[in-house]
Amino acid sequence: MREDMLDSILRDLNGTSADIEASAVISTDGLMMAAQLPQNLDPDRVGAMAAAMLSLGDRTAQELARGSLEQVLVKGGDGYVLMTYAGVESVLAVLAKTTAKLGLIFLDVKRAAESIGKVV
Amino acid sequence: MREDMLDSILRDLNGTSADIEASAVISTDGLMMAAQLPQNLDPDRVGAMAAAMLSLGDRTAQELARGSLEQVLVKGGDGYVLMTYAGVESVLAVLAKTTAKLGLIFLDVKRAAESIGKVV
Repeated sequence: MREDMLDSILRDLNGTSADIEASAVISTDGLMMAAQLPQNLDPDRVGAMAAAMLSLGDRTAQELARGSLEQVLVKGGDGYVLMTYAGVESVLAVLAKTTAKLGLIFLDVKRAAESIGKVV
Repeated sequence: MREDMLDSILRDLNGTSADIEASAVISTDGLMMAAQLPQNLDPDRVGAMAAAMLSLGDRTAQELARGSLEQVLVKGGDGYVLMTYAGVESVLAVLAKTTAKLGLIFLDVKRAAESIGKVV
């Protein structure tokens, strides 16, 4: 089952670091495909925000001559949101704590995105 | 002169690393305050994209419980755009090459943003 495989990849990703709080796979038009989220986060909201950020990030990368978009990182006072393409039509969004080691998170997220890209 | 001080901070920032290609200070509503940009980049376009990314980043950080927004990073195949608040009403946007060492760029940009925050 594709959904089970995605769930399994997300569970593994969340398990690689205590700093990863949540992760989700979202279609590029903002619909949820799989999610491992805490109860206080609404999947529809996560999907909508991630798709909007990727879409504007796409345009920013293009307009400012940065090539094709690979990743968008949002840093807030209470943590990070990292969004990256997983294949052509889906997006991996990851929420991490402010204590996260970004280098490790980038690496784990990149690997998970590659695995997801093979499944979807 | 405030504008000269901003230009001087941006020139210093661009000089800290050969990987920093351009930098600009933009009001949070997208108007250019100072810029050190190569000729192929339209200041109005840089201002508009940076303000839009910060605005959506703000909302994303809020909706996904990440606290108040500090930074947005866009990674494309040909380089980075890093946007960060410099004081309350202005934004520092930096364009860096794909070879940039992110840790160093983050540090230099943070320092420059602090200096800018004192000037504007």
